[in-house]
Amino acid sequence: MKTQYFPPEWAFEFHGHRCPFMPIGYRMGKLALECLGVEREKDHGFFVFPEVGIGHPQTCMLDGIQAATGATYGKLLMEKTFYGKLAATFYHPQKGAVRFSLRAEFIDEMGKFEFFAYRKKGIEPSEIPPAVVDEVINWVFEQPDEFIFKIEPKPDFKFSPVKGSFNKMKCSVCGEYVFERYIRIKDGNPVCIPCSEYEKR
Amino acid sequence: MKTQYFPPEWAFEFHGHRCPFMPIGYRMGKLALECLGVEREKDHGFFVFPEVGIGHPQTCMLDGIQAATGATYGKLLMEKTFYGKLAATFYHPQKGAVRFSLRAEFIDEMGKFEFFAYRKKGIEPSEIPPAVVDEVINWVFEQPDEFIFKIEPKPDFKFSPVKGSFNKMKCSVCGEYVFERYIRIKDGNPVCIPCSEYEKR
Repeated sequence: MKTQYFPPEWAFEFHGHRCPFMPIGYRMGKLALECLGVEREKDHGFFVFPEVGIGHPQTCMLDGIQAATGATYGKLLMEKTFYGKLAATFYHPQKGAVRFSLRAEFIDEMGKFEFFAYRKKGIEPSEIPPAVVDEVINWVFEQPDEFIFKIEPKPDFKFSPVKGSFNKMKCSVCGEYVFERYIRIKDGNPVCIPCSEYEKR
Repeated sequence: MKTQYFPPEWAFEFHGHRCPFMPIGYRMGKLALECLGVEREKDHGFFVFPEVGIGHPQTCMLDGIQAATGATYGKLLMEKTFYGKLAATFYHPQKGAVRFSLRAEFIDEMGKFEFFAYRKKGIEPSEIPPAVVDEVINWVFEQPDEFIFKIEPKPDFKFSPVKGSFNKMKCSVCGEYVFERYIRIKDGNPVCIPCSEYEKR
């Protein structure tokens, strides 16, 4: 095995199925923490910008990154850039930024495994024979980091999270609480965005 | 205890700290699955649209929802609506949709706990005394579902995921793979969005 970074069993449980991309994301996340010299994020101080988008495969990487780094979507620490690329930039305000991307040669080699023939037929990961799934997962574990990842320091990377506020108000139409930033005004009264009808749903 | 839906220890490990909102999201997610009559999602067939945004607290709910339902950000099954509200719509193509929101009375009662005094002073959850954290978590466990959640069936809710494609191409500038939907053309050649410089970063 060329890596020490195997996802714990709970990361597979979180993700819902076994596939090669969650473990690749887990490994990428662990290497990024190591590279920047930071611990897994408990609270709200480490950010990840994965370059994936929608309408394409292999985004499962992001669940591995969440599991490895603690930079979760729920803590507002992860946002996609919608570039359609298998890469991510990891940023810590005191430690700087690093970008990890998957090398084209690695993607080409991995694409030859039977797992992807099933996926391209539309068969969901949980329905693919376990031996076929494990074959590609184990092959990835055996590849060296340098074959899988291109790693680029990003000294000029900048990101400032928005200033947060606890202030909230009740929508005058539905009565539900709305955080202040999202309050709109209609006929002189505070309303939530859906009640405002200012945005097409 | 008024609920059977306590997050497993791995969900706290995934989230990174103990707080009341991850468990509230976990419970909301479990109740939504129950309400729609579906199992935790292994693959890509169940969608959640949380109404939270950025720049406000209590979004930790989303990590509980990911853990409970398997509708993860990495599988492209969860997207925020940016309404700044503590609510989420759960959608299964065959079973329909249901919206869960937190009742204003519940939010007001919960807001009286010392946990929030710490948070408003900017103290991170992992730095708050464990007894203060557990006090509010346990109080929530003791509240009945009806006091916490408003539940609304959404028979008219519609959502169609975009059609996915495995097609990809190398960017003619950086040489990295890009999924087809995100390829742009510059000087007659295929490029990725960052290399195109068509979008300000």
